[in-house]
Amino acid sequence: MSTLREWGEDELVRRITEALPTDSSVITGPGDDCAVVRHEYGTLLLKTDAILEGVHFLPEAEPELIGRKALARAISDVGAMGGKPLHALITLVAPAQESGQRVLGIYRGLSSVAQQYGVSIVGGETARGPVLLLNVALTGYALQPVLRSTAGAGDAILVTGTLGGSIRGKHFSFTPRVAEGQWLAAQGYATAMMDLSDGLAKDLPRLATASGLDFEVDASSLPCTPGCTAAEAWGDGEDYELLFTCKAERWQALLAAWPAGFPQLTQLGFMRAAGQGRTVVGQGGGWDHFQ
Amino acid sequence: MSTLREWGEDELVRRITEALPTDSSVITGPGDDCAVVRHEYGTLLLKTDAILEGVHFLPEAEPELIGRKALARAISDVGAMGGKPLHALITLVAPAQESGQRVLGIYRGLSSVAQQYGVSIVGGETARGPVLLLNVALTGYALQPVLRSTAGAGDAILVTGTLGGSIRGKHFSFTPRVAEGQWLAAQGYATAMMDLSDGLAKDLPRLATASGLDFEVDASSLPCTPGCTAAEAWGDGEDYELLFTCKAERWQALLAAWPAGFPQLTQLGFMRAAGQGRTVVGQGGGWDHFQ
Repeated sequence: MSTLREWGEDELVRRITEALPTDSSVITGPGDDCAVVRHEYGTLLLKTDAILEGVHFLPEAEPELIGRKALARAISDVGAMGGKPLHALITLVAPAQESGQRVLGIYRGLSSVAQQYGVSIVGGETARGPVLLLNVALTGYALQPVLRSTAGAGDAILVTGTLGGSIRGKHFSFTPRVAEGQWLAAQGYATAMMDLSDGLAKDLPRLATASGLDFEVDASSLPCTPGCTAAEAWGDGEDYELLFTCKAERWQALLAAWPAGFPQLTQLGFMRAAGQGRTVVGQGGGWDHFQ
Repeated sequence: MSTLREWGEDELVRRITEALPTDSSVITGPGDDCAVVRHEYGTLLLKTDAILEGVHFLPEAEPELIGRKALARAISDVGAMGGKPLHALITLVAPAQESGQRVLGIYRGLSSVAQQYGVSIVGGETARGPVLLLNVALTGYALQPVLRSTAGAGDAILVTGTLGGSIRGKHFSFTPRVAEGQWLAAQGYATAMMDLSDGLAKDLPRLATASGLDFEVDASSLPCTPGCTAAEAWGDGEDYELLFTCKAERWQALLAAWPAGFPQLTQLGFMRAAGQGRTVVGQGGGWDHFQ
């Protein structure tokens, strides 16, 4: 009898998702930042995301930041499809001895980020349990959702903001790139897009695999957070920046058109046809291996 | 510092929900079976619901039944608005040492009830945690959702199926009353509706309070599950039957029109104007008190 530890997350997800019921209304099912479904009256983005005490935050974390993070993570996923977040449902699981004031602080954090992004919190669920857990279900709207599976060979690879060191605070205070994602989708620059939750070293191969491609990136071009090494920018994760691809002939025009109020934008390399390998040039070291 | 235990669920929910961000797209927020939101292209039902090991099921429960229950509860809520369930997202939290086969069994149960009700499972989330937990986020569609807040004074109170004793198996094997809810909504019989998850003794007062009304019911008319007492029919909960109201001049026509394939339908009493009291006639005993 295998345990979940023996399988690992990727194997678990592969086994879970290989036989899920679906129908013609499902444009994109498991495997992208959000699911994309067609209703008789339009296209809807659907996302669910959970954070637990001891895994995603420590007991001593500020309650407002816990709430902020729970919802901002899901908002980031909607932004990474080029979408606008709309309505959220919150599931709270907590021990009976949990402090009421702490829970109210968490909801203040949820409400604050919801207001900032125009999200309505329309309901939810509370349950008793052995650990503090928040699950967010979020809907969003995108006229033309940008998937992670639609990059082309030769496309430029770009990333917003700076990478690495999020454990020092950004994993709580990050800004979901909703305006940037919507702009990229509306202008037609992004051929594929996702948000960086697990770090470039894990997420870029995911985008490549979803698109059936390989890639070559230049480690010396990495936009490292001040004080971070390239290895940290690759591997730390929880950046919640946008990773996306853009037609090779357009990426320099994109850099020129990129609005002044947006975070910095960096080109890292290019997608390559499958079989050409996944290569990191510009720096040696042990961190350039992809599983 | 108050704990959640000291507040109790109703007080916690009241405090959480008193300041949630909302906007004009929210037709019904927290407090009904589902949230009802207006998109630019139609009306959508949104529901989230969680079950945990040790609270909603025991460790020795059949995995398929655990999965079935997790999704069927949410489907029941959509049915209780007169809606059609559409797309589900599943959050699985489990310890690393959990058996992979058990998790796959749970997903077989989820898939089976999804297929039965035409629901597509479009994604989800997996996380490590100290307890097995399943959260279901479900969307649904209703042309005209039936709320629990719209009963009128004088309306008849009706319930589908039989009540009580669900712990003997029905809490796993119940049938979400989706066809019945859609029929009642489409025919315009139901003036208010909800599903019976916590039992008539708790849920009828909720419907009455949401509608700003009182009620009088006849305990001798309760459709008790064979082998159950009236007290069990009142209080056991997890019946997942429909509780609804119908204009006084139409409920006898409704009984005559009720399709043959549907479960039995019972009239229990009438809604009364606020201030006329909440009365149970037809039987004595200590179980007819509402908090």
